[in-house]
Amino acid sequence: AVFCVVVLVLILFNLILLSVNGTTGESMSLSVEERKKLAEEWCKRGHGKLEQVIVHVGSMSVKESKELARHAAEIGVDGIAVISPSFFKPKTAGALRTFLQEVASAAPNLPFYFYHLPAFTGVNIPARDVLEGIEQLIPSFRGVKFSGNDLMDFGLCASYSQPSWSLLYGVDEQLLSALVIGANGAVGSTYNYVGCHIKNLMSAFENGDLVQAKAIQFKLQELLKYAVQVGFDVGVNKQLMSEISGLTLGPPRLPVEPCSSAHAQSIKQKLISIFA
Amino acid sequence: AVFCVVVLVLILFNLILLSVNGTTGESMSLSVEERKKLAEEWCKRGHGKLEQVIVHVGSMSVKESKELARHAAEIGVDGIAVISPSFFKPKTAGALRTFLQEVASAAPNLPFYFYHLPAFTGVNIPARDVLEGIEQLIPSFRGVKFSGNDLMDFGLCASYSQPSWSLLYGVDEQLLSALVIGANGAVGSTYNYVGCHIKNLMSAFENGDLVQAKAIQFKLQELLKYAVQVGFDVGVNKQLMSEISGLTLGPPRLPVEPCSSAHAQSIKQKLISIFA
Amino acid sequence: AVFCVVVLVLILFNLILLSVNGTTGESMSLSVEERKKLAEEWCKRGHGKLEQVIVHVGSMSVKESKELARHAAEIGVDGIAVISPSFFKPKTAGALRTFLQEVASAAPNLPFYFYHLPAFTGVNIPARDVLEGIEQLIPSFRGVKFSGNDLMDFGLCASYSQPSWSLLYGVDEQLLSALVIGANGAVGSTYNYVGCHIKNLMSAFENGDLVQAKAIQFKLQELLKYAVQVGFDVGVNKQLMSEISGLTLGPPRLPVEPCSSAHAQSIKQKLISIFA
Amino acid sequence: AVFCVVVLVLILFNLILLSVNGTTGESMSLSVEERKKLAEEWCKRGHGKLEQVIVHVGSMSVKESKELARHAAEIGVDGIAVISPSFFKPKTAGALRTFLQEVASAAPNLPFYFYHLPAFTGVNIPARDVLEGIEQLIPSFRGVKFSGNDLMDFGLCASYSQPSWSLLYGVDEQLLSALVIGANGAVGSTYNYVGCHIKNLMSAFENGDLVQAKAIQFKLQELLKYAVQVGFDVGVNKQLMSEISGLTLGPPRLPVEPCSSAHAQSIKQKLISIFA
Repeated sequence: AVFCVVVLVLILFNLILLSVNGTTGESMSLSVEERKKLAEEWCKRGHGKLEQVIVHVGSMSVKESKELARHAAEIGVDGIAVISPSFFKPKTAGALRTFLQEVASAAPNLPFYFYHLPAFTGVNIPARDVLEGIEQLIPSFRGVKFSGNDLMDFGLCASYSQPSWSLLYGVDEQLLSALVIGANGAVGSTYNYVGCHIKNLMSAFENGDLVQAKAIQFKLQELLKYAVQVGFDVGVNKQLMSEISGLTLGPPRLPVEPCSSAHAQSIKQKLISIFA
Repeated sequence: AVFCVVVLVLILFNLILLSVNGTTGESMSLSVEERKKLAEEWCKRGHGKLEQVIVHVGSMSVKESKELARHAAEIGVDGIAVISPSFFKPKTAGALRTFLQEVASAAPNLPFYFYHLPAFTGVNIPARDVLEGIEQLIPSFRGVKFSGNDLMDFGLCASYSQPSWSLLYGVDEQLLSALVIGANGAVGSTYNYVGCHIKNLMSAFENGDLVQAKAIQFKLQELLKYAVQVGFDVGVNKQLMSEISGLTLGPPRLPVEPCSSAHAQSIKQKLISIFA
Repeated sequence: AVFCVVVLVLILFNLILLSVNGTTGESMSLSVEERKKLAEEWCKRGHGKLEQVIVHVGSMSVKESKELARHAAEIGVDGIAVISPSFFKPKTAGALRTFLQEVASAAPNLPFYFYHLPAFTGVNIPARDVLEGIEQLIPSFRGVKFSGNDLMDFGLCASYSQPSWSLLYGVDEQLLSALVIGANGAVGSTYNYVGCHIKNLMSAFENGDLVQAKAIQFKLQELLKYAVQVGFDVGVNKQLMSEISGLTLGPPRLPVEPCSSAHAQSIKQKLISIFA
Repeated sequence: AVFCVVVLVLILFNLILLSVNGTTGESMSLSVEERKKLAEEWCKRGHGKLEQVIVHVGSMSVKESKELARHAAEIGVDGIAVISPSFFKPKTAGALRTFLQEVASAAPNLPFYFYHLPAFTGVNIPARDVLEGIEQLIPSFRGVKFSGNDLMDFGLCASYSQPSWSLLYGVDEQLLSALVIGANGAVGSTYNYVGCHIKNLMSAFENGDLVQAKAIQFKLQELLKYAVQVGFDVGVNKQLMSEISGLTLGPPRLPVEPCSSAHAQSIKQKLISIFA
């Protein structure tokens, strides 16, 4: 692809999904047309290779989000996810729920996920409050991608959750702490390069081997502590994916600044030494 | 008008400007096409009536911002303003300056203004740092709309400022405090209904009548204290403009919720009693 | 006792401790003399009944903290804990470590614990950074009471920890998430009335029964969600302890306001219905 | 003096005051006995030289604050000031007002000032709300030291103020912006070394020479911008006072770290070049 193509590998217990146009993919820096083209390419190329393709259609504009949701339905994706708008912030859980409902109504047959990312959006409404009664308002509702530190809020989502919902946790360095209170999947940008280890973590957890699960979680924490100390953001993550995969992913878009190869290499070396 | 049309009245010492597609106008909730159409309408209708029309072209996407800047140049606006992207936040003043430069390059002949609004964007880089050397990078640079509380930062912008620059202050309830350290204009959403009083405040300040200027400022502070206590946001402001002007401006877009007429009326009555 | 006597029950896997002059006990609102008297009473009365008595000696003043540490050693407590000063905040981990070292030097033979409570202190230095090399500076160092949400930081403390250290977790509503990454004890204000249930949670965790452990954690989360919604602070907690235990604990000190019996009763009823 | 003695020079339009045991003087790091001794020394030595000596008696403990207030009355100070406790934070304006009232009741004949410093205390209750009806509760109430950026809140305090009250502004780099909306005095740590310039600023303002007042304000802003960039806190300020005055003030107390002479000298040189 000619434009910035970065995706999240999503790991569930029994399937590999792909999340298109999310945070790692810099969707908010893309135009609507670019987002549509990316979704189309991933649907086409992922066919037969990936279990599911979930497309993020959140945007600052409810109108554009609805357009993206309609488009996602037309091209046959497996689900859509929506984040809260963050320039104008919803003042109540009800306002946010109504925003989500409006977007969902444009693609009523697609499984719908709420994407909770308070550190980026500045929207600190508890996810549990957003979920209140959402199954009535959005019949296609199927779960949450929860990328926050507040594990009481996450636990309350889990205990409110219905059997068909996915509770996907998105703070990679705390995954085990979320699994133990109800996460049934994980979505995270680091899984693009530590995915195999995290699969082992999840298997260990499933098998009741908490010692092994903890050991892997500690390694990822050590890696991220190092990465944050030397500098870590979406641009660094992208360069790191390039260095590890060998695929040239291109530079990030402004205002994210490009990361030097040397910077990414130092994190790659740390990764190798930790997970050796 | 068929879509949400709300604008800021901008008051300078000697002219009336119009700021299109800013925060009050909910530009971030509009699609690119809607923003273009609004800019066109205001250019057409404002011709001969308004001194200047400034169009805000900031967006989460540098690509869309450039498209809007090019369009603004084509339709003959008098200047453009750009806010920092806020989902992906610039990590340094340099990154933000480069973002602004990239947008300005799409309309190099249009006067260019930086729009600083940290409470909404969550970008807390001092505006003074953003201005460092900006006149070399953006030859069309003409000033700042500063909507923040940090008056040391504002003063440093003013003392760095060149004679041709405008230093427009945007926290209505602190205007006098900014005038005294170098503001030469004001842009604010409340000026849509208290504009005449603020013109008096500015005239009093110009004439050295600080007692009178302070008296007016205190009235606006009293009004806003009341408004905040009963509830005040972009949606309330919009309804209040409708109630006062008699023009039906329509509801806000999600996630901003509509405001009842009764709510806006209570603020209108307070305004009338304070400024009687 | 004639003055405000509230304590934390502290639960470890195999012993019951008492933490005197902590947050729940409003130590920061007490005079130095009152703190000394409380420590003395608890030592005297706890003798033979409690496994250990740990006294918190943190204060805004390093001088007063040292005086309290010396006093604690004289009366024969089993350990001391120290929180960061929070009016003047340490700017680096090193500054905080030096502060702790200075206090510890006044009672070099007492086991020493660092108390990390960022939500109250506003000191957001990672606990892991504070621990760096602390065993050299403070030979009596024995662990951390970690009352923060950042479980990556907690995990990094756990993986850095030495065998003799205690890693006590203090956010009651997230305890299970901390146990799974290395907590070996828990200290929390709600344990004064849900202690037996939390002992069951910890036993279930020890026995590998995560389903049961999660079920209990969910109940505590439900209780705290309710308590926060109706209003919950140190004063409410104190009244709730009175209502449940039947012991009159007296009112809190200003600026904490007293809580009505009805308010505390509504939380007590919720507790009863949830844990029935 | 044998212990840390640092004070604020306080400038009013027509008198020089001294503020003892404030933030610059690190009162929160001192023991109660040290604070009493300092207050005594300043009263004794200031007699006949200073117009007034105001003693800060705020503390985390209402009991200790009352003790300090009683002591202040006994030694004949001219007034007392009280800051909000900040470990346990008041949840409402009413709770804070009651705390202030309780302290004031211990020295009912001393002029009483509320000290508002949200950046240190983390207490973001508007000062205006604290003032509501305070003249009934505290008959000795005489004003506010307002050290916050929110000039709408400050303006509302000013318009509520009674003729006998002092409205002292404490953010040195924004003083002119506060004078224009009602400040009638200034208290600030930098006035210990730029006091003469600030007196000129205030005189210029009084005489209606806003051009001159602004020029001086810009110089102080330039100085503080530089100081913040190289590192500035209570410890740096203390060393800077030593370097400029030639009086050895001694090191700060932990957790504030000492500042090197070279660091302070670089700020001193900047000061000299700016105000030359």
